[in-house]
Amino acid sequence: MWLRTSCSLTFDIAVPTPFILMLRPRSGAQQWIAREEYKLSPSIPVYEFTDIYGNLCQRLVAPPGTFAVDTIADVMTSDHTDQAPGGPFVEVQNLPDAVLSYLLPSRYCESEQFGQMATEITSGQMAGYDQVSAITAWLRDNIEFLPGSSGTPLSAVDVNARQHGVCRDLSHLGIALCRSLSIPARLVVGYPYGLEPMDLHAWFEAYVGGRWYTFDATQAVPAGGYVAIGYGRDAADVAVYNQFGPPVYPVSQTIQVQHIESPNPE
Amino acid sequence: MWLRTSCSLTFDIAVPTPFILMLRPRSGAQQWIAREEYKLSPSIPVYEFTDIYGNLCQRLVAPPGTFAVDTIADVMTSDHTDQAPGGPFVEVQNLPDAVLSYLLPSRYCESEQFGQMATEITSGQMAGYDQVSAITAWLRDNIEFLPGSSGTPLSAVDVNARQHGVCRDLSHLGIALCRSLSIPARLVVGYPYGLEPMDLHAWFEAYVGGRWYTFDATQAVPAGGYVAIGYGRDAADVAVYNQFGPPVYPVSQTIQVQHIESPNPE
Amino acid sequence: MWLRTSCSLTFDIAVPTPFILMLRPRSGAQQWIAREEYKLSPSIPVYEFTDIYGNLCQRLVAPPGTFAVDTIADVMTSDHTDQAPGGPFVEVQNLPDAVLSYLLPSRYCESEQFGQMATEITSGQMAGYDQVSAITAWLRDNIEFLPGSSGTPLSAVDVNARQHGVCRDLSHLGIALCRSLSIPARLVVGYPYGLEPMDLHAWFEAYVGGRWYTFDATQAVPAGGYVAIGYGRDAADVAVYNQFGPPVYPVSQTIQVQHIESPNPE
Amino acid sequence: MWLRTSCSLTFDIAVPTPFILMLRPRSGAQQWIAREEYKLSPSIPVYEFTDIYGNLCQRLVAPPGTFAVDTIADVMTSDHTDQAPGGPFVEVQNLPDAVLSYLLPSRYCESEQFGQMATEITSGQMAGYDQVSAITAWLRDNIEFLPGSSGTPLSAVDVNARQHGVCRDLSHLGIALCRSLSIPARLVVGYPYGLEPMDLHAWFEAYVGGRWYTFDATQAVPAGGYVAIGYGRDAADVAVYNQFGPPVYPVSQTIQVQHIESPNPE
Repeated sequence: MWLRTSCSLTFDIAVPTPFILMLRPRSGAQQWIAREEYKLSPSIPVYEFTDIYGNLCQRLVAPPGTFAVDTIADVMTSDHTDQAPGGPFVEVQNLPDAVLSYLLPSRYCESEQFGQMATEITSGQMAGYDQVSAITAWLRDNIEFLPGSSGTPLSAVDVNARQHGVCRDLSHLGIALCRSLSIPARLVVGYPYGLEPMDLHAWFEAYVGGRWYTFDATQAVPAGGYVAIGYGRDAADVAVYNQFGPPVYPVSQTIQVQHIESPNPE
Repeated sequence: MWLRTSCSLTFDIAVPTPFILMLRPRSGAQQWIAREEYKLSPSIPVYEFTDIYGNLCQRLVAPPGTFAVDTIADVMTSDHTDQAPGGPFVEVQNLPDAVLSYLLPSRYCESEQFGQMATEITSGQMAGYDQVSAITAWLRDNIEFLPGSSGTPLSAVDVNARQHGVCRDLSHLGIALCRSLSIPARLVVGYPYGLEPMDLHAWFEAYVGGRWYTFDATQAVPAGGYVAIGYGRDAADVAVYNQFGPPVYPVSQTIQVQHIESPNPE
Repeated sequence: MWLRTSCSLTFDIAVPTPFILMLRPRSGAQQWIAREEYKLSPSIPVYEFTDIYGNLCQRLVAPPGTFAVDTIADVMTSDHTDQAPGGPFVEVQNLPDAVLSYLLPSRYCESEQFGQMATEITSGQMAGYDQVSAITAWLRDNIEFLPGSSGTPLSAVDVNARQHGVCRDLSHLGIALCRSLSIPARLVVGYPYGLEPMDLHAWFEAYVGGRWYTFDATQAVPAGGYVAIGYGRDAADVAVYNQFGPPVYPVSQTIQVQHIESPNPE
Repeated sequence: MWLRTSCSLTFDIAVPTPFILMLRPRSGAQQWIAREEYKLSPSIPVYEFTDIYGNLCQRLVAPPGTFAVDTIADVMTSDHTDQAPGGPFVEVQNLPDAVLSYLLPSRYCESEQFGQMATEITSGQMAGYDQVSAITAWLRDNIEFLPGSSGTPLSAVDVNARQHGVCRDLSHLGIALCRSLSIPARLVVGYPYGLEPMDLHAWFEAYVGGRWYTFDATQAVPAGGYVAIGYGRDAADVAVYNQFGPPVYPVSQTIQVQHIESPNPE
């Protein structure tokens, strides 16, 4: 399906402030960007680079005053999420090199602490895709999805203690549980289709059966319409923006995702 | 200045044909892409990756029938080309690792054969930027710029023998001369502003004074308005499209570059 | 000075166990490996790759039984650690792309929580090298260096609460404090010369004045003789070995560093 | 089998001369380096980096006088070369991104000129491994392997015209023929076991059946005992040394490869 995603951020800047933005979705195996706009007001110099995870990042220094970023993208993405019940566990020695860093504990995914819990949750499951499905179902049944409940990211340990969190927090716990079973897992931040209230979303991917599969503990049934902005080990790697110096908060943030017939309307 | 660039290619495809396209300019130190469209007709799956030179490449299999690619980009680029007379030669041992591969001979730049010629052309010049300026001036005075004169790329040896060539060919000779003096040099393919007749353009960059500088032997005076699509060692690395299997030629190719006031007209 | 480093690890393996080892120091700007041995007993297939931080990593599956890894390297390294009092802070917008990931919070360096503390510790210091010096001095005076006090890594928050830790833990706190001031910082694991008792060591580097500088809160005066094995954001990235599956512990681990006259004795 | 390889190069240096050496074989899927020495006389600073093909390269500035490089490596490599008759052609759209650059023409492999010739040579063969086998057999039967016949590399066009060449030249023609059929192919430089007279050797690899396979037109029957030093598109990428400034030639070069029982003799 074709989706038109947009993100508008406005900041009140007091002193010149360096930013690293991650707001340009890129075309990849799962999605194709047919049209995009990236508007800065005022118009200032920007430099783009690719980070170690392959994300496109924009570097700039926001000048004092009102600073706005408006991005729009028309994206072809799948109507459904691929599923692979029975997809086999890939033994560590057979994983591609590039996947290995997604096995290790990271800032918000303390996987070294979840081995026993993951073993219990996935008891009786075939190693691989079915284990990740069981973890996702367990999250859905046991950790309350409470949009707006946490401003800063919760780590897997934190969300497991609180028993509730936002999409990103649930994903952190899902990732930590997967990694503790030697299943590579990573966080994805992006736009979902049909989420209410509309906001940026986070889900996770696990590497089983020889490729990455999408899992989302916030959805009762697997849906489609995901548009990825960034990939990383956890939320520390995939901030829509990182800002340096005295803290600056957006005075407004508007996210929209709509279904469109085609990216090139006359 | 803001430029709107567009490239439209149409092919008659007989059998399913794999393509690698390089038609998405990327935001970098020298340019910023504020808006872009990338339309395929018919609409087919595409996968994008970053090649070893940092270029964004699109992989697809064109289906039989008429296949069209239309791209548009609104790009902020400099009004003028940076110049640095006296910019010093960087000794090989002080070059960044990533620059070293631009010192070696490549498909169309047989730099190992041009040491003596380069020494003569740059006689009396300070090592560095001034040597590259002298090479560019020599090309302008001695190799005729004949748009349309060569369909396939000419190597430095070839163009030196013929004494004429297209922009890409002149650049090959410029690059080979630079490398023979241990100055890293690379080919850039992109859109120029104000070229007549309008076509894709090629120029070259040399690494002196601690950064890359633009040189263009086809221009009497250094101009601005360059929009880069791809970088590489020579034309073998920076084809706007590579096509595999039985040869396919574009039945039409239209390039446009126009000055615009702003990328976001209401 | 020339150092001969060695590391011998022995494991009792119950079931075939995948390992990722990081035991081959590499030649770089700061050190040169003139001779090395890497012996596995029994001799089994190994595959080496370079991780996202540039470290050489060895992948293998240890077979059941006694499994031993013995590495030796003869390394030229500096007699002293470079120092640069007054070395300036590099503004975020001027940092190289490759350095940016060392600005973000990571598993054991929760830098987002240390802004106020770092500001107090570095009060009155010139931004840059002197801030990192002040942080290192503060660690030396306030956090007790207790070899053997922690088996698993302590995060910056943990070590700040306990007020003691091993070399790696002190480094985590130093790194978190630096990053909270927008100074890139990374962990280094390697061999020190003259440490008692001899063991693997960890220190940290901060990026100021346009390059990485070494800091070590465990040393009263800056020393030389460091041999780096691996670099990363914190201990989660730079384990000498990662092992997957049921936990396996070394039954013996011997580290030696000795001064040698030359790497090629007859 | 275990092989002990050694390479000794001696140069008479007149002025300080930057070098990039490629003399450290690395452990990979096909070989394991258990012991190595890398001796420079006089002992001078060296910096090592990984090039875009994954090769370990050493940068240094040789001082005036006699300059010697002596390297030794004990390497486990296969007794035989893997073969896969019937291994299928991988369609371009299914090739890994990292393999694509080995499809394009390069300095010494003008693959765009060999389409018809390759089609004739491989007439009747199944697409894939068998095509490459047919190319290798054709080279063996039609291009004379004349050690010492060419000092500088011959391109595919050149060697096809001369009908003889050294191992590197034959490989260039083999690579160009493969690429013209959309089969990725690359040059490997390294040590062979059992070659007479002993010298550095070059062979090529082709990507068929989902992996790289070794081909060597200089051998009547496929042998084992290959130790790779470097990989690249052709000889321009894989020089054992590149030297910059006034030309310098080795006054002596000694290569040895011997079979050993074990890399760690007492």
